[in-house]
Amino acid sequence: MAGRVVRNIARADKAVIDGLARAGVATVHEAQGRIGLLASHMRPIWPGARIAGSAVTISAPPGDNWMVHVAIEQLHPGDLLVLAPTSPCVDGYFGDLLATSAMARGCRGLIIDAGVRDVRDLKEMGFPVWSRAIFAQGTIKATLGDVNVPIVCANAAIDPGDVIVADDDGVCVVRRADAASVLEKARAREANEADKRARFEAGELGMDIYGFREKLAAMGLKYE
Amino acid sequence: MAGRVVRNIARADKAVIDGLARAGVATVHEAQGRIGLLASHMRPIWPGARIAGSAVTISAPPGDNWMVHVAIEQLHPGDLLVLAPTSPCVDGYFGDLLATSAMARGCRGLIIDAGVRDVRDLKEMGFPVWSRAIFAQGTIKATLGDVNVPIVCANAAIDPGDVIVADDDGVCVVRRADAASVLEKARAREANEADKRARFEAGELGMDIYGFREKLAAMGLKYE
Amino acid sequence: MAGRVVRNIARADKAVIDGLARAGVATVHEAQGRIGLLASHMRPIWPGARIAGSAVTISAPPGDNWMVHVAIEQLHPGDLLVLAPTSPCVDGYFGDLLATSAMARGCRGLIIDAGVRDVRDLKEMGFPVWSRAIFAQGTIKATLGDVNVPIVCANAAIDPGDVIVADDDGVCVVRRADAASVLEKARAREANEADKRARFEAGELGMDIYGFREKLAAMGLKYE
Amino acid sequence: MAGRVVRNIARADKAVIDGLARAGVATVHEAQGRIGLLASHMRPIWPGARIAGSAVTISAPPGDNWMVHVAIEQLHPGDLLVLAPTSPCVDGYFGDLLATSAMARGCRGLIIDAGVRDVRDLKEMGFPVWSRAIFAQGTIKATLGDVNVPIVCANAAIDPGDVIVADDDGVCVVRRADAASVLEKARAREANEADKRARFEAGELGMDIYGFREKLAAMGLKYE
Amino acid sequence: MAGRVVRNIARADKAVIDGLARAGVATVHEAQGRIGLLASHMRPIWPGARIAGSAVTISAPPGDNWMVHVAIEQLHPGDLLVLAPTSPCVDGYFGDLLATSAMARGCRGLIIDAGVRDVRDLKEMGFPVWSRAIFAQGTIKATLGDVNVPIVCANAAIDPGDVIVADDDGVCVVRRADAASVLEKARAREANEADKRARFEAGELGMDIYGFREKLAAMGLKYE
Amino acid sequence: MAGRVVRNIARADKAVIDGLARAGVATVHEAQGRIGLLASHMRPIWPGARIAGSAVTISAPPGDNWMVHVAIEQLHPGDLLVLAPTSPCVDGYFGDLLATSAMARGCRGLIIDAGVRDVRDLKEMGFPVWSRAIFAQGTIKATLGDVNVPIVCANAAIDPGDVIVADDDGVCVVRRADAASVLEKARAREANEADKRARFEAGELGMDIYGFREKLAAMGLKYE
Repeated sequence: MAGRVVRNIARADKAVIDGLARAGVATVHEAQGRIGLLASHMRPIWPGARIAGSAVTISAPPGDNWMVHVAIEQLHPGDLLVLAPTSPCVDGYFGDLLATSAMARGCRGLIIDAGVRDVRDLKEMGFPVWSRAIFAQGTIKATLGDVNVPIVCANAAIDPGDVIVADDDGVCVVRRADAASVLEKARAREANEADKRARFEAGELGMDIYGFREKLAAMGLKYE
Repeated sequence: MAGRVVRNIARADKAVIDGLARAGVATVHEAQGRIGLLASHMRPIWPGARIAGSAVTISAPPGDNWMVHVAIEQLHPGDLLVLAPTSPCVDGYFGDLLATSAMARGCRGLIIDAGVRDVRDLKEMGFPVWSRAIFAQGTIKATLGDVNVPIVCANAAIDPGDVIVADDDGVCVVRRADAASVLEKARAREANEADKRARFEAGELGMDIYGFREKLAAMGLKYE
Repeated sequence: MAGRVVRNIARADKAVIDGLARAGVATVHEAQGRIGLLASHMRPIWPGARIAGSAVTISAPPGDNWMVHVAIEQLHPGDLLVLAPTSPCVDGYFGDLLATSAMARGCRGLIIDAGVRDVRDLKEMGFPVWSRAIFAQGTIKATLGDVNVPIVCANAAIDPGDVIVADDDGVCVVRRADAASVLEKARAREANEADKRARFEAGELGMDIYGFREKLAAMGLKYE
Repeated sequence: MAGRVVRNIARADKAVIDGLARAGVATVHEAQGRIGLLASHMRPIWPGARIAGSAVTISAPPGDNWMVHVAIEQLHPGDLLVLAPTSPCVDGYFGDLLATSAMARGCRGLIIDAGVRDVRDLKEMGFPVWSRAIFAQGTIKATLGDVNVPIVCANAAIDPGDVIVADDDGVCVVRRADAASVLEKARAREANEADKRARFEAGELGMDIYGFREKLAAMGLKYE
Repeated sequence: MAGRVVRNIARADKAVIDGLARAGVATVHEAQGRIGLLASHMRPIWPGARIAGSAVTISAPPGDNWMVHVAIEQLHPGDLLVLAPTSPCVDGYFGDLLATSAMARGCRGLIIDAGVRDVRDLKEMGFPVWSRAIFAQGTIKATLGDVNVPIVCANAAIDPGDVIVADDDGVCVVRRADAASVLEKARAREANEADKRARFEAGELGMDIYGFREKLAAMGLKYE
Repeated sequence: MAGRVVRNIARADKAVIDGLARAGVATVHEAQGRIGLLASHMRPIWPGARIAGSAVTISAPPGDNWMVHVAIEQLHPGDLLVLAPTSPCVDGYFGDLLATSAMARGCRGLIIDAGVRDVRDLKEMGFPVWSRAIFAQGTIKATLGDVNVPIVCANAAIDPGDVIVADDDGVCVVRRADAASVLEKARAREANEADKRARFEAGELGMDIYGFREKLAAMGLKYE
């Protein structure tokens, strides 16, 4: 039954989290073996943000945002709120007042598999949100949920304290225990990509850079 | 059967309408008891507009925009066009020429549970539209519809002369007769929110501002 | 069976292609008799681009972008890549490295009935994409597809060398053989629209400009 | 604000309602001028039922079925329950126990723009439901809604006491005041259709029965 | 521009068509190299039918079924009607009267990327339909389309006279010129499958029948 | 990285599993506190089955069913296959041959957040499947996935050996360790429901059985 709030959760190293933010979703996702993406319906409400933070998770009833208040008290600077409704819902759980409160606690953003509102204000405040919907429909405060329990959000399993990376490409979760090693792989990948980019700019082809010609011929590719 | 145009419709007071525009969709929706929202698939074609106006309603056949011309003649300055197709349709009923004509009549924007096109031009012209789709598919002029009759648009019932409020959060209808009292409640709500915002910025928690701790404990919330 | 690459495809005249770009999707679509639009789920990843180019087509397996490398070698300056997956897929087939390579070959953009990633980079590079989804999910290189064969992309049949026009209203295909005559009709249409626009701006009504009053009355339209 | 139950609603004549059931949705919809259909996502949970009844309407919060109990007390034999959630929801508001209760009150079925569950039991009981979803997700009893107020259900405006007709083709609402005249038109239509059916069975073509050849030629239809 | 009816179309051999029907969609689709499927939203209105026939194609305006009458006159016994709307539409283009007429002409069924109605009657008549939607919404007869021209239906390109195979798995198109060779491959496939089925029933594993163990080990599969 | 097969997984007690099957999805879901449902897009391919079994989980690449063969070897009698693709996919991963093989191993059914085919055969064989889609599109065997690792399937987290209950209401997962206690609660719930059903049949109202009248009045419900 719902009604649990876990107060002490472990978090990844701040420098690692910030490094993952700089790497961005696509690179992090590749670096950890193409896992961890939230579903593609999770879109930013304004373009250009690129963030990472530790997940403070919320499991909330449909149309009821009471637990968001409970969760805000659990925020540490550098955290993100991550909300999954217990059944599908597009109601606007979150607006400018809650964002003001969350920012005052050092919150870096919100990931929500439901709706938000006051999006013009949120953009002006620089508070980034990735959501399923934008919808002004209000919520109530009548039923308990949980804070800092494992959740499934937009088809991805997320534990409290996991690192969430989000940018215009979407949202990716990195297991807390894997964060440092994923960052290392992401940096290696970036170094490799910088070299590739220069060669592509110079007009070299992937066919040659990656040596695809022989493999493709062996597979039976025919030129006409 | 279709084929009616109602010429004289009552409209709300201009100052009230403009006040509702300033309040915005989320506040107006709350102020009138969380009713009146159009479905969340109604999205602005460009961000940042916040408008209100009196609804000139159009019930149009799928893929046929003849009635838009009829409706434009019925526009008074400060009105909005609100179009619902008689069966689901994403065709582009409306583009830059019709917007030019509507603007010349003082029209403030378009709400359409179907498609629009020429959206780059509409943005440059500053003509705001909330629609279900952007689609260049053209329409014909072959069948009658109705102008200024009650319609259901994006799952909301709208009467001609009702006040429509629209911004980045979506679209909300306010019954004409309720407009003044809703505005009053909206203003009270805004005053209250300004106070709350200051407290949230100062780091106070909703848990304390709203006195949630006891109620949550009584409901059985457990901290671990 | 898959595995064909056609190297020599005919292309339309460059001046015609550029003329079609200037006309834009809505006008071109009307000019050729309201055909050729791709489905409305094909949306630009950033607003404001208006382009046209010759289609280099790609039929690719779900989640496999090997053929994109093959196709890039077939690009001529002024071409567009047009990719249709062989079954529905939203994976990110294309990102900033492939865009770098394609731009080095003179590619004007990408039309893809699947996903893309690195969209912030693509926007900064000025590389326009129209896609079904934005999704960081990576792809593999394991299975053959085809390049420069006829495809169906987003419910539109496209042959290699056809002219693709794309802007904020969506994407339209013009048969290569029809390109010149469609451009001619588009220009005639634009001239006509300029005149109409001036009359609309001056406050004339479509009811009068197009002579609708009598036809509508004959159809039975009643004013109340 | 929510919290109203209207006890005395007017209903259409029972014989008229039963006649509309026999006519079926497609015929009734045509007979009243192609209006009144609920959206096509409203599908029967089992095939073959064809019913009509007087609407007892329910406006219910998302995920809260308390008002269904309130509404069941208001049922008269021959009524239908018609539920619209106040924001989009697919939770299972209704199952076999509520159906048992509703049937004991003479209820003929349920129209719900949300979810139902226990569908195998409902089928065995012969209780017909048209819904947006089948979903076992339970609901709570915490918030008020309204019973027998005007609602918008699946994009159709429905007043308490309106006649609802439902079969495998979907769901249609007939205004209570129009029920008798719509039935008359439906019967005329059926008589006409019986004659047409016999001619079609005998191999006559619609081209000849309806005299389309000349009109089509005048429109420019060309045979090759 | 629309308005063409092609009267003489080539058809595949009747025995080949009937053979393809017996093979069914999944087998035919595999036999021709995994191409030709219509989108998965095309579903049968009643289960159990397995048919094939020659396509008489219809390109129809949204909400206008005039061309269906034109197409019925072009039917030969053993044909199927295949309708694609020129823009997305779920209206009910087709019901029991048109089915009566089509059956009198020897039509085997309807494939329609839009809606149908009278589905209970169609089931009783044994007339099979694969459609995008079931919707009682009526259509008009005001605008020309085309009959027996190439169309794109549910994301598949279909030429008049192509063989359409349809069953509970969906709908597949086979190019007329390929029909005989596809049937041959389908039969070879079925013979091979019968052998496989017997081995699977006897408890043999695909791992052994297909020799997957070594390949998987070479790819790096690890058992724990 | 993918490529793991876990051979020894713990399973719940057979009698408990069979008891959960008899209770059905709605009751089990309620009994465990309204958690564990898979998304409502998971629908049975034929109606009437009610099963439970131990999950043998499969994480498979999009459009690649190689791991299904690997998983079948890991089946014990009484197990269910549960497949989640690593990115969204509707391809037909599974048909009658794989079902024959799975049944020969004692498999009770398939839960797949993707597509299946040969559905007429599967129905005749009595092999139940809950899926996102029915689609004849074939798959390949080129890339590794995992068997018997934790997965997220249709927005629900599932561990190998968890109990899956499925019927016409959808699909629900019960943690293996909770299975016995959930069954106990489910039985208590059923006993309670039998009593309620009798009272409802006798015409008693939920308003009285559950004592709602006072609570509703206290909340402010008004009768008119």
